[in-house]
Amino acid sequence: MIPVIAATAQEVCMCELLGMSANVPTDLCFSFTGLRQRGGGTGPHKDGWGVIFYEGIGIRSFHDPGASVSSEVANLLARYPIKSTVAMCHIRQANVGSVALENTHPFVREFGGRYWSFAHNGQLPGFHLPDCGMAQRYRPVGQTDSEALFCCLLNEMLEEGVDALDREQLVQRIVGFCAQHAQTGVFNIILSNGLWLFSFCSTKLACITRRAPFRPATLRDGDIKVDFRSETTPHDVVSVVATSPLTYDEGWRTFAPGDWCVWEAGELVGAGHVDVPRFAHPKDKKPMQAASA
Amino acid sequence: MIPVIAATAQEVCMCELLGMSANVPTDLCFSFTGLRQRGGGTGPHKDGWGVIFYEGIGIRSFHDPGASVSSEVANLLARYPIKSTVAMCHIRQANVGSVALENTHPFVREFGGRYWSFAHNGQLPGFHLPDCGMAQRYRPVGQTDSEALFCCLLNEMLEEGVDALDREQLVQRIVGFCAQHAQTGVFNIILSNGLWLFSFCSTKLACITRRAPFRPATLRDGDIKVDFRSETTPHDVVSVVATSPLTYDEGWRTFAPGDWCVWEAGELVGAGHVDVPRFAHPKDKKPMQAASA
Repeated sequence: MIPVIAATAQEVCMCELLGMSANVPTDLCFSFTGLRQRGGGTGPHKDGWGVIFYEGIGIRSFHDPGASVSSEVANLLARYPIKSTVAMCHIRQANVGSVALENTHPFVREFGGRYWSFAHNGQLPGFHLPDCGMAQRYRPVGQTDSEALFCCLLNEMLEEGVDALDREQLVQRIVGFCAQHAQTGVFNIILSNGLWLFSFCSTKLACITRRAPFRPATLRDGDIKVDFRSETTPHDVVSVVATSPLTYDEGWRTFAPGDWCVWEAGELVGAGHVDVPRFAHPKDKKPMQAASA
Repeated sequence: MIPVIAATAQEVCMCELLGMSANVPTDLCFSFTGLRQRGGGTGPHKDGWGVIFYEGIGIRSFHDPGASVSSEVANLLARYPIKSTVAMCHIRQANVGSVALENTHPFVREFGGRYWSFAHNGQLPGFHLPDCGMAQRYRPVGQTDSEALFCCLLNEMLEEGVDALDREQLVQRIVGFCAQHAQTGVFNIILSNGLWLFSFCSTKLACITRRAPFRPATLRDGDIKVDFRSETTPHDVVSVVATSPLTYDEGWRTFAPGDWCVWEAGELVGAGHVDVPRFAHPKDKKPMQAASA
């Protein structure tokens, strides 16, 4: 039986995650327009935000320690279509680590000649980097447990000599890491090396794959509708993962705690489940329902 | 006697460097407005551009593989004052490595719990990463010799166990690295860990320190004037280093090949000279003159 462990809103970082994987370069303007409203507008996550766009093996990163709803840089990203096959976004409500640029997700490190990026929703009380591995080649710059956990994962993979280009081996290793750390706290994550996008649900995560026939969709945050038919070709496949559904008129799939998924070029290429303790998601303790389709 | 080695424009990367160190958070809008004109406007460097802003120990990075003169993101940066104590900018005219995001300077890596950033003007024919050190913990993502050289420096410092917070030790090590590699090609660099800003001149570099009494200044690229008196307090100290002077009515100091400088909080805190071969700077083979003051 999986134990249920209560957590209060004060104990757990309320953050919003967003990830995208696509088979053609796709912009994030629509999803980002919705998500950014939660950064000080429809949501309380006003303590910084960041976006990573992969274009081939290169990245563009945007980080801002202020509220996304009023950010000049966020204004640009909501209207300027940066085309990407993998992107991730995080908006932050701080608890561990001050409101500062160095504590703003997603975190980025080069590993095996690729840029890896990582964003986390949750908190792991008592986690300290020295707990894992002696190499500590990767060190956190800021004070968050999230960045320390990311460094810990990379240090472990470096020590073990995992093949940085072998997706199967990497995902297996990352799932093991998630299963271990999700025992001690809330550990919803998205992680990418630019080729594939991995997500692990500890309390709350939802996803959708859009493909032909495309349809209109309406944002839950803000009265904005897009008709994907005019934005796509019949061959486009785009998967989006987020803390909660971004639209109310599409069929999002909700994750159960312990579920993980990995997408490449928009398609689900791996998924599974590990047993984890059930922590309550702060301010949202009812089970999440799929949005009406 | 220092040998004079000719280099053609085809052999050497024509790029533009810009670095800033200040004792109070200072925006780069004025200097960036001038420099970006050289990225496809008054200069031919249209193959990408990037800027790093340090805010405390955090960074914001902006990279774009297109021409800075027509970039939407550059438009934002020229008018939106991001305040920083250390910043660096690079605009690129490609030779080694395709025009792609992953080849766009400045390059960033975490070393010793700080973000290090690096931009290079020049080319080192024949340089390959395996030449230096076995650890190769840091690997280039793109194909430029510049990124490989940066990784090489970090691998060497990691192997040697240098103290990542000891400025004197680090600068001594970096000067040695520059002296070695400037023997084989053009190696103008700026490098920072967010605390201090280092620059090394192989062919061409100029700098200025602005302090009270401040005066007006006029950009060489574009008919734009700023009166620093209205932008500063009497205690502000701001040093700027660039491939060539950005203004024509201030007294810029030119570097001789082999000169290096390091600034912290706007003040020069170290400088020296090493003997290096004299390579011609492409398309600018006359000795550079200081701008009229």
